[in-house]
Amino acid sequence: MMERIRKQILQALAGGEISVYKLIDLQDASLPEFFQLLQEMEEGEIIQISDGKVGLTEKGRELAEKLGAKYFDVSCEHCEYTGLKIHDFFKDVLDKYLEIAKERPETVEEYDQGYISPEGVIKRVEFVYERGDLLKSRIFVVGDDDLFSIAAALTGMPEKIFVVDIDERLINFINKVAEEYSLPIEAMVYDVQQAFPEELKKKFDVFVTDPVETIPGLKLFLSRGVSTLKGPGCSGYFGITTLEASRKKWYEIQKMIHDMGFVITDMRRKFSVYPQDEKNFFRFQEKLPIVEKLGAKIDYDWYKSTLYRIEAVKDPKPLVEGEMIIDEAVYRDSESWATPYGAD
Amino acid sequence: MMERIRKQILQALAGGEISVYKLIDLQDASLPEFFQLLQEMEEGEIIQISDGKVGLTEKGRELAEKLGAKYFDVSCEHCEYTGLKIHDFFKDVLDKYLEIAKERPETVEEYDQGYISPEGVIKRVEFVYERGDLLKSRIFVVGDDDLFSIAAALTGMPEKIFVVDIDERLINFINKVAEEYSLPIEAMVYDVQQAFPEELKKKFDVFVTDPVETIPGLKLFLSRGVSTLKGPGCSGYFGITTLEASRKKWYEIQKMIHDMGFVITDMRRKFSVYPQDEKNFFRFQEKLPIVEKLGAKIDYDWYKSTLYRIEAVKDPKPLVEGEMIIDEAVYRDSESWATPYGAD
Repeated sequence: MMERIRKQILQALAGGEISVYKLIDLQDASLPEFFQLLQEMEEGEIIQISDGKVGLTEKGRELAEKLGAKYFDVSCEHCEYTGLKIHDFFKDVLDKYLEIAKERPETVEEYDQGYISPEGVIKRVEFVYERGDLLKSRIFVVGDDDLFSIAAALTGMPEKIFVVDIDERLINFINKVAEEYSLPIEAMVYDVQQAFPEELKKKFDVFVTDPVETIPGLKLFLSRGVSTLKGPGCSGYFGITTLEASRKKWYEIQKMIHDMGFVITDMRRKFSVYPQDEKNFFRFQEKLPIVEKLGAKIDYDWYKSTLYRIEAVKDPKPLVEGEMIIDEAVYRDSESWATPYGAD
Repeated sequence: MMERIRKQILQALAGGEISVYKLIDLQDASLPEFFQLLQEMEEGEIIQISDGKVGLTEKGRELAEKLGAKYFDVSCEHCEYTGLKIHDFFKDVLDKYLEIAKERPETVEEYDQGYISPEGVIKRVEFVYERGDLLKSRIFVVGDDDLFSIAAALTGMPEKIFVVDIDERLINFINKVAEEYSLPIEAMVYDVQQAFPEELKKKFDVFVTDPVETIPGLKLFLSRGVSTLKGPGCSGYFGITTLEASRKKWYEIQKMIHDMGFVITDMRRKFSVYPQDEKNFFRFQEKLPIVEKLGAKIDYDWYKSTLYRIEAVKDPKPLVEGEMIIDEAVYRDSESWATPYGAD
């Protein structure tokens, strides 16, 4: 596998020196794997790194040439790899969303918060719409620092959106917006570790979440979402990165999905981008392990996630229903290199 | 689940009357499920069908309005939902490929052949390139009516491409092109039902296939591909439709993938389109069950597949290694409504 990542890096650098954060975005390994490979290639004098820029050495250039490594950006510049445009109807939704989001609470490290770009939120809503999962549906959102509930409700399509989040500031903000704009949203403070409330079980058609990417975190977030679904045919949407979740972790996640009675219907690579907004989690970038390791400030939107869609083919079976207190930190494991040190 | 498909249909028709083949493309159900729902909606006087066009009845329009169903095409028109453009380097590859493909053997119903669009083939090559799976790699192709091997080899990047196909005409064509253009391709006649040749096992980095979409067919095509891989980190690319493979079948496929030691890293909906070329399988459209059922000629590129990418996280373990003669037809099951009646 690392042989492939090495080729991705050589291809990327064959086009010239680039920011190390852009390089992260042009390869598929997790952050610890990437960092180790970077060190090996530097020690092997294939690449040189300075001031957050990575380039090929003379020896590296010879190697790249011998292999025939060339850099081509094949992603569609119009939709930024998502395959979706923002339709005029949804542009109006985006405008209102942007106005509202100005007042959003800023992310706090305590809860490992971080939000995706407004355009990414709208495209997620569009994708849910396209699947027939938005119209007159009951949607449950587990953790909503993205304010997905607001974007979805602004379309006027969902019947009801219920949000749970551990952060009271966020819940108050969402409830206030819901009231002000007469949106069918209800938000409630809830920690995924607590037993899941009976009255919310089997009441929804769709769940949406951006889980914490540790195995216990994933199990909890996905189980809580799954608990809310009515039955077969219901679906879930969530983002997972390749950066803080290696392929071995993805393998475990896919097993969980299967065991809960779901098929994966979509996996859209790099669908969601976490921008460097002043309120986003890059505010405390000095507390992110990857930034410390690289010793360079973030200068590129490198943190992206793959959008999964899953659909129940059996009666949805959450892996956890009662309380599950995680002894180790909920938010961190050995791959959490983009999670602030304070998040535990 | 059918409730969701019903919403997709109402949304699609809220924009006005459309070809029934376009409608197939705007919903997620398999062909038998779609057809059944179409009949129910016609009997319920929600829709009317004539001359291959579907529209809402008066009652249907009222229902759509009550629900607030609206049609928006949210797909990016520049890349046709794929997220990828064709980069200049690959445009040159496309030009050569088109020139060569003029002489391709026409599809025969006997082998359930059908090929994806040249642009789709090139984008598949680009996606393989982007993953680092093209450069100096050894690629195995199981069934190559798409002529993927030729497109990939024309980039000059792969070390070696080995093709197996049951169709001698295709094998001869590929070998002739390989010789004429000095491409590192070797093609051999082989029926996936035969025991897999020892000398081809564990010799490749990547496999590519477009499996027959019956469970035994899928098991065979994927197992043969998996047999060729060297070890963990190696990958496979293949297309599967939602039209001839329901979500229950996808669930089984995903279990197979997991059991063979693989994680799914990508699933790109509608990535590959089967165009209505004169040599393609729509030539014998009167033999396709769906065409017979609908009683309307094809007037839209409706047959598309999702591109899967899988990656071995363990030692790849094919589900079948020896001979496996399929008693029932290899090519057909109750969902094969776009497979010609002659294909068994």
